[in-house]
Amino acid sequence: MTTEVALIVGGGPGISASCARLFSREGMQVAVAARTPDKPVLKALESEHGVRCYPCDAREPKAVADLFRAVTEELGRPTLVVHNIDGRTKDIFRKDITEADPGVVLDTLLNSTYSAFLIGQQAAQSMLASPLRAYGHRGTIIFTNASAAFKGFPKSGAFAMACHGKSGLAQSMARELMPQGIHVTHVPIDAAIGWTQEDGTRWHRLAGTTVDDNMADPARIAETYLQLHRQHRSTWAFEVVLRPWAEKW
Amino acid sequence: MTTEVALIVGGGPGISASCARLFSREGMQVAVAARTPDKPVLKALESEHGVRCYPCDAREPKAVADLFRAVTEELGRPTLVVHNIDGRTKDIFRKDITEADPGVVLDTLLNSTYSAFLIGQQAAQSMLASPLRAYGHRGTIIFTNASAAFKGFPKSGAFAMACHGKSGLAQSMARELMPQGIHVTHVPIDAAIGWTQEDGTRWHRLAGTTVDDNMADPARIAETYLQLHRQHRSTWAFEVVLRPWAEKW
Amino acid sequence: MTTEVALIVGGGPGISASCARLFSREGMQVAVAARTPDKPVLKALESEHGVRCYPCDAREPKAVADLFRAVTEELGRPTLVVHNIDGRTKDIFRKDITEADPGVVLDTLLNSTYSAFLIGQQAAQSMLASPLRAYGHRGTIIFTNASAAFKGFPKSGAFAMACHGKSGLAQSMARELMPQGIHVTHVPIDAAIGWTQEDGTRWHRLAGTTVDDNMADPARIAETYLQLHRQHRSTWAFEVVLRPWAEKW
Amino acid sequence: MTTEVALIVGGGPGISASCARLFSREGMQVAVAARTPDKPVLKALESEHGVRCYPCDAREPKAVADLFRAVTEELGRPTLVVHNIDGRTKDIFRKDITEADPGVVLDTLLNSTYSAFLIGQQAAQSMLASPLRAYGHRGTIIFTNASAAFKGFPKSGAFAMACHGKSGLAQSMARELMPQGIHVTHVPIDAAIGWTQEDGTRWHRLAGTTVDDNMADPARIAETYLQLHRQHRSTWAFEVVLRPWAEKW
Repeated sequence: MTTEVALIVGGGPGISASCARLFSREGMQVAVAARTPDKPVLKALESEHGVRCYPCDAREPKAVADLFRAVTEELGRPTLVVHNIDGRTKDIFRKDITEADPGVVLDTLLNSTYSAFLIGQQAAQSMLASPLRAYGHRGTIIFTNASAAFKGFPKSGAFAMACHGKSGLAQSMARELMPQGIHVTHVPIDAAIGWTQEDGTRWHRLAGTTVDDNMADPARIAETYLQLHRQHRSTWAFEVVLRPWAEKW
Repeated sequence: MTTEVALIVGGGPGISASCARLFSREGMQVAVAARTPDKPVLKALESEHGVRCYPCDAREPKAVADLFRAVTEELGRPTLVVHNIDGRTKDIFRKDITEADPGVVLDTLLNSTYSAFLIGQQAAQSMLASPLRAYGHRGTIIFTNASAAFKGFPKSGAFAMACHGKSGLAQSMARELMPQGIHVTHVPIDAAIGWTQEDGTRWHRLAGTTVDDNMADPARIAETYLQLHRQHRSTWAFEVVLRPWAEKW
Repeated sequence: MTTEVALIVGGGPGISASCARLFSREGMQVAVAARTPDKPVLKALESEHGVRCYPCDAREPKAVADLFRAVTEELGRPTLVVHNIDGRTKDIFRKDITEADPGVVLDTLLNSTYSAFLIGQQAAQSMLASPLRAYGHRGTIIFTNASAAFKGFPKSGAFAMACHGKSGLAQSMARELMPQGIHVTHVPIDAAIGWTQEDGTRWHRLAGTTVDDNMADPARIAETYLQLHRQHRSTWAFEVVLRPWAEKW
Repeated sequence: MTTEVALIVGGGPGISASCARLFSREGMQVAVAARTPDKPVLKALESEHGVRCYPCDAREPKAVADLFRAVTEELGRPTLVVHNIDGRTKDIFRKDITEADPGVVLDTLLNSTYSAFLIGQQAAQSMLASPLRAYGHRGTIIFTNASAAFKGFPKSGAFAMACHGKSGLAQSMARELMPQGIHVTHVPIDAAIGWTQEDGTRWHRLAGTTVDDNMADPARIAETYLQLHRQHRSTWAFEVVLRPWAEKW
């Protein structure tokens, strides 16, 4: 039996790192694509979990095509692809619409939204070229998103635009690809996200918070992603909004 | 360690029976409430899985209060309550709005929607009276719903009214009760639902279908319910729409 | 040319009274149905605007059928029907789900939701029996609703249930009846509503407010209803959410 | 009394031309910005309705800033700005996600979505610099959109992404700017759009259709835009979906 390959796009210490650890523990060969693959968190994933890191600017069509080619040649065709790029920078966060810098806004749109298209397109091409697996399932494409995917908050125009765009892409891809055996899912996370420690049991308390779990635990998010990947195609969930018990919404 | 108690309201051979079997296998003491508890499917659950069946007309406030009192006294306080009454009858299905019988419409509203309020209210009261469990979780309330919860199809006014109503109730309860440690979730199932055979491995093929899994498999739905019940409160999902890979939406 | 007949269900001093005044000024013969038709506001509408008031308990199928028969015989078939019953009472407002009285909850469901079905059904039957008017338009059915139609606020379970239910009914009726020439529209009003004075130019300032127009002005709501009724069928709006400029949402 | 200035971005023969004609007839000075301002339809608007046409590539921050500067200097600050660029080209329409050309997808995102940000930002800056007008209203910004704004159809990933993005932007801007006296509205049109003839009374029948009004009439859309601009701020509509009576949805 061949090893399953998972590709995680985005190299942060939160959801991406937690997914990489969990998927490795579950026996998958994991690839992580990041703009700067030499970050300590990624080095640790490589040395401790056998994760393979690939440099990739996911806004560039050629770079994304090259990424899928390299992963496929070196590890095999991925059956689980997670797009996990947030693209938000502090330069657009909580800025009046009149104060947002047009160049930063364009970067946000390219980073969050256009990269999701490029990754989603390559993932679809690769999975459609694969044979059907058990239960008629070719693979799973997961788009991580934020609450701005379904609510446009004030002083958040550029981010709302980027997140809503990603949401529309995911929904269209789901309608198109689910009947072809690809499970496309959209996971808006309505929360601040904590960082999981290497030991996997707790995550950092943010300054000013007194309760541990009023942030989303990325290790728990990774569990939900694994469950989504393993859902039988008779009952696929397209969208799951995750939020902590204490979140206002 | 005490045994966990699950209460399933609605006694059909699909989701209710599948939940009863799975929850029993997972070590819970399961109660099923149904208007006619002497149906063969329920007798089989009692004899083969140790499920306890309770008669209950879930449209009656006193009957619902009595149900919770009896289950709590005999089995213990339920930590997982599933409202699984569809309430649709063939008399309102695909009828012109002008043809729907007002009495049948009122029955649908009482069966689907008002009973969800009564069950939800009693479940909340019971769970709030319980001590906090691991991870600050008092219990889980799951409302099964249909695609009419989010889309009002033509010739379906009464059912759309009933399902939307249940959806609004669930959302309000989630906002109110999640910060108090109760996981309220809403599961619209956008599919025809098949029946699981007693052996648990396949379900009936409906006349005219050629592929097995273009209907939702209730055994898979039960798995999702169990996962929802076991989600950590740092990442609770309020709503999960389940649909087969081949469903048009 | 015959006079157009409008029927407004609900006899409050806000939206119903404003609609009655505006529709009368526009040349329609206006009927108002109310449980207690001898209120001063309705007496004033009768004496000053020629409005006809009908007693009707809109939760009763026979009462609603009688209403439409009487209006049709005495004034003519209505081409504009507004369901304007809120059904909320102070007994269910901002109550914990565990504190809501089941009898009051049932009343809310009957008043807000079931009455909308009964009125909508009779309106549809009456309009479908009418000849096509200009632009292939048989008539307009407007369902007034609240923000609880699309958001289930905490401590508001019964009202969210009732309002969501009305919303689902309206959407199903729109999909079914618009192709038959009936414009069904849903107008959730995300605001507190002020009362228009008889002179039509200002409305009461509520205690504690300092700005006049942070409440919805019912005279402006009536204008929107008239515009909806007059929309050409090539561009019908199904749903319009109205909120004051200063409302948080 | 000074003349009101309206700026319409997008120079097509449908909604843009109909808005230009109607707003001119209502006494406004109308500016139309288009990439190719020498099209016959625009020449006719200039000669017959006194409309001023401006060349503008709305994907370029400097071009958009220059547009607003020129319009303000030559005509005055616009109080009604309509973003009416669809951005869809036949190259992305009904294409499998795997077949879409990444360059064309990026163009769509820039044309439909990023240009909406640039226009919206300049409109907000200009209106916030204006004095409050009657009813505390500084101006109206209207974003025309398509049904892909709320539903991601299959084979439509790029367009769904672009339209959803524009929707998120509009919603965020509304929440931010409505309390400052700017009416931001979003108008998804769930229809094919016909072309209004110069005489204003009929529009072309598309090949293969037999009923005139199963397409949206842009002259009627323009009427709705004018009504939205004239809504009192006590009851502003953020979003209006327009569809023909016969549309499936």
